[in-house]
Order: sequence, then structure tokens, then C-alpha cells
Amino acid sequence: MPAPSVFCTRPFLAGKRQLLTNLCKTSVDFKQCRNMRLLRFQGPTGPRLAAERKDGHVVDLNACAELELTTPGDTIEFLTAGPALWETAERSVKSGKHALRVNDKCYLAPLLKSDKVIGVCSNYADHCVELGVPVPVEPVLFSKFSSCLVGPTSSIHSSSETQTLDWEVELAVVIGKQGKNIVERKAMSHVFGYTVAHDVSERTWQLQKNSGQFLIGKAMDSFCPIGPVIVSKDEIADPHNLTLRTKVNGILKQDSNTSQLVHRIPALITFISRFFTLLPGDIILTGTPPGVGCFMKPPQYLKEGDVVECEVEGIGCIRNAVRRPDAA
Amino acid sequence: MPAPSVFCTRPFLAGKRQLLTNLCKTSVDFKQCRNMRLLRFQGPTGPRLAAERKDGHVVDLNACAELELTTPGDTIEFLTAGPALWETAERSVKSGKHALRVNDKCYLAPLLKSDKVIGVCSNYADHCVELGVPVPVEPVLFSKFSSCLVGPTSSIHSSSETQTLDWEVELAVVIGKQGKNIVERKAMSHVFGYTVAHDVSERTWQLQKNSGQFLIGKAMDSFCPIGPVIVSKDEIADPHNLTLRTKVNGILKQDSNTSQLVHRIPALITFISRFFTLLPGDIILTGTPPGVGCFMKPPQYLKEGDVVECEVEGIGCIRNAVRRPDAA
Repeated sequence: MPAPSVFCTRPFLAGKRQLLTNLCKTSVDFKQCRNMRLLRFQGPTGPRLAAERKDGHVVDLNACAELELTTPGDTIEFLTAGPALWETAERSVKSGKHALRVNDKCYLAPLLKSDKVIGVCSNYADHCVELGVPVPVEPVLFSKFSSCLVGPTSSIHSSSETQTLDWEVELAVVIGKQGKNIVERKAMSHVFGYTVAHDVSERTWQLQKNSGQFLIGKAMDSFCPIGPVIVSKDEIADPHNLTLRTKVNGILKQDSNTSQLVHRIPALITFISRFFTLLPGDIILTGTPPGVGCFMKPPQYLKEGDVVECEVEGIGCIRNAVRRPDAA
Repeated sequence: MPAPSVFCTRPFLAGKRQLLTNLCKTSVDFKQCRNMRLLRFQGPTGPRLAAERKDGHVVDLNACAELELTTPGDTIEFLTAGPALWETAERSVKSGKHALRVNDKCYLAPLLKSDKVIGVCSNYADHCVELGVPVPVEPVLFSKFSSCLVGPTSSIHSSSETQTLDWEVELAVVIGKQGKNIVERKAMSHVFGYTVAHDVSERTWQLQKNSGQFLIGKAMDSFCPIGPVIVSKDEIADPHNLTLRTKVNGILKQDSNTSQLVHRIPALITFISRFFTLLPGDIILTGTPPGVGCFMKPPQYLKEGDVVECEVEGIGCIRNAVRRPDAA
């Protein structure tokens, strides 16, 4: 009799899946990472990759010799290794070894060095109403640099270039399997899981300068806090029915649901992969709902000392203060 | 008496530099990588980092134990290690050990996994005349994904999405030292060297679709061939006086000089680093001169089977054929 898993909240379903997995040993496509809340934390010797258990402990995956992970804290190594390693990791987490208490202030960005951090414009039906713009027929894409990714409690950098700094809570999709020209019915098999992203935006640089190219306004240092964890996709019953919210200094600013997504996750993956090969660790920011500061009357912008909380149901909350980098 | 270096074409200057380096041991800023033509090639066991000698041999830097490079073929590891390692590498190259003959068809992209690949729009005075647009007051930036980087003889992918595929030869700057808010007089100290880049562009997706955001038109798979080598900056007497040319199927299309750059390299570095921390391995594509296909009358576009040669004086030539990925 195996020890009960602290993770397994749906034992019947998990049992059925295991049976199917056993029947399909030849198909690595079928296997998925289950019941995993991946994170990175700052250990005494550097960043570590870990998994959060429901009892509040985390399991240091870099301490699990059976995983043979070579670079501590490297989420992309874990994702690239694929389903066989993820299965081993599930067993490692259930084994109860290498469990630690980690202060959540030590949580780091759960993912760094993504090849692609892709954003989608105007992708909430209720946000399009707020903007008074038609719903886009096709997704409109922009990008951030991988170095924009910062942790769930890291600072958002303010400077003389950030006079019109704005918030955007987003559900972020984390790719687990490489693919190009992915058809919609297979799109979800390329998703490892989800995280919360704050698509920080400097509106003057995004909309009025740089000849209308969003890059500078979207990709300054620190402009993509993510976390606190990457939740494997089986943990989320329906990614298109999740509440997401932003609070600034405790005051609710954005409050919507991913049911309002215009282009849903499979459609985004299909569209994006027409042009770009998606790689493990790539992140798709699915868009933001209404309630951003620049469309308020009068507009509201973030200033030094403000604290922004972005939350997505079933994943968690990230909490980032706006600070000068030298004070960060 | 040290053995004569096959690299050192300016022994007097090199000697003076060595003297100064010895006098300035406390200042790592002063040391620069000298006389280095860095490349990557496909070895029997995988990619290798190497340096090209003027006699046509290359020295396998991953075989030089004294460098203690841990990941074969990782240019960013080499760049990040900084001037002390670069000096050791210069000595390794001069030692004559680990020299090989490598067919230049085995050359790979000299750099992969850059955090940032930044492009600059309309940055040649003569190109602005061609476009009939005023010279931009500030640089206008866009980006490609790191996974766009391909080798000097790799294929450019054509597909149903590339009906208006165009060429752009560019001088690319490779960053060697991290920096933010870099002042112009210190900007060149952040440059490791230069390479040739082909900023492949799909004009419909760049200019008419994706709501005017360049990303899709600029960042499709394979849209940034680079190489054949990264030349350390001391090898280029004046980066603002280099001929650069494009030929398509042997016919000259672009023929200009970096003297026509509107925003020169130090100004670009200063501007870009106002927003983004530049990291070792980051690439700045400095812009393209006149002669691109989309402004010809009638417009000319690349089709399957076309061969594009992009050349920058003092660096070399990259030669990329347009092919369907399944035939690539």
C-alpha cells in the first residue's frame, strides 16, 4: 500500500490516468506532469528548483539524486527533459525526502532564460469594450526579453523613463514541449502549466514613442514579474474559467475571468506556432482584462513605493513593489 | 623569445597594449580581447567554440584545458567570463595547440541564446533617402528571438507565411560586458566585437499585419543568420567605415558603408541601456542600408532556392539559401 500523497486531491482520476499511462508506455505524448507546483527559491548556495506540497513544505528537486539535474535552479532543464523526468519528479515529491520549509519571500521567478516571452494585445472581450476597440480577428503579438522575468516579490524598477507605469495581470502559459505548426486539437499537449504574470507596461514608451513599436514600453528591466509557482496543467480544471485580479496598495483595480479571453489558449498556440517554434520554457502572456490605469479618468499610474498584487485563481498571488533599482 | 604569433599583424601596437595592460592590472575595463575571430563549428561530438587563425586553421577553445570552459560551444560562457579568460584564450591560440582544419560549411552561428537580439529601424542616412522618411531623432527599436539566430550557411525558412520575404545586411555589435545607463564615452568598453547579420524580414507581417507590430515579420524561425565569426573589436580599425553588401543569386542589391549610420554604435548602446541592462552575448543589429527588395519598383522578394550573400568588410560573408524547412 503506497503512502497517501499529500498532492493527490483527485485519487480516482489520478488512478485512471496512471492506468492509461501504463497502457500507453510507448507514447510520451500522453504522459503529463501531474499535481506539480514548481518553484525556484534562493537556497544558501544559490537558486534551487523545487516543488510545493500542499502541507506548505517544498521539496528541493536539485537534492533528488534520481533526477540527475545538472544545473541547480534551472527550470528549463527540467522542462526540456520531458515526461519521463517529470514522472520521476512526482515520485520524488511523494517520497517525502528533501522537504524543507521555505519562506515565500525566498521564492524566485519560477522560470528564467525563456527563449520567448510573448504577449498578446487586447485579448479580453471586456477589455476591448473598455478600449472601445473591436475584438481582434487574429491575435496581435509583442514580446519581452527573458531578462524581464523577475520573482514574485521582486521590485519593479522605476526611473526617469517610467512616468506612466501601468499594471496588467495575466494568466501565463508555460510551454513544456517543442512544436511548430501545432494544430488546435494537439495544442494543449504542448502546455506544461500556468503561472501568474504581471505584464508591466510603460504607456508613453509603448504607445507614443519608438514609432509605435511596443518593445521599449513592454520590455524594460523587471517588467515581467512571474510566479509564485508554475502549476502543472492537470491542477487547473479549466484554464478558461479562472478569476484574475490586480490590487494596487490594497485597492482592487482589475477583476475579471479568463472566460473573457478572445483567443483561447489552443488558438494562441496554433497561431504563434505558425511563425515560431515553441520551445520548453517559452511563456505566453494571454492578455489582460479591463481596469488598467491608463484608461481610467483621469489616468492612474504607478509611482515609487506602490505595491501591486496580481492574482490568478488556483495559481497564487505575486506582490511587487515599485522601487528605484538602487533601492531595490 | 616567444614564438611569433600568426595572429599578430601589428606587433608594435600589440606590444604597446601589453605594456599598458601590465601597467593597469587593477583595471579590468582596460583589457580587451585582441586579435580574435571567434566561431563555433560542428565537431564530431557536438558544437565547439573556436578561434580562426589567419593561416586558415582554427583552434578548438573547448580543447584548451587552461580555459576551463564547461559547456562546449557556449559563446556566452566565454563572453561572460570576461577579460582574464579572453587573455588566456589569446595565449592558447598563439600556442599553436589544438589547431584544426575545419570546412567552413561546418561553421555554426557564432553565438546562440542571447538574451537580447535588438534591431534598429531606418538607421542609414541613405536608406532614409530611399524611404523618403526623415532621419529618426531617436533610434527606433524592435527585437528578434534568440532562436532566430542561425549559422552562416544555414537555410532561411520559407513557408506559406513568407510571400514577401526580404533581405537586409547589417553590421551586428556583440556585447561583452554587462551594463545599464552606459554613457557614450564608455559605450565601446561594453563591445566585445562584431559579426555580420542578415535581418531577414517578412514585409507583409512586418508592415501590414499584427497591428503594425514588427515582431512576427522580424522574428520567424531562421530570420537572423549571423557569422561567419565574431571579430574582436580591435581587429576593426573603424566600425563606422566598413563596406557592407548584399547579393541575391550573385546580383548586387545593397552596397553601402557604415559611415552612413545615423545613430552610431556608442549612441545606440547609450540609448538601449537607458531601458535594458545589456548582457554579454546581447546583439545589436545596427540597421540596413538602401537596396532592400520591398522598395524596388516593382518590389522584389525572395523565393525558394534563392541564395543571399551578406558581407561586411573585415568580418566576412554569410551565404544563406531560402528553403522549405522540411528540405532545409
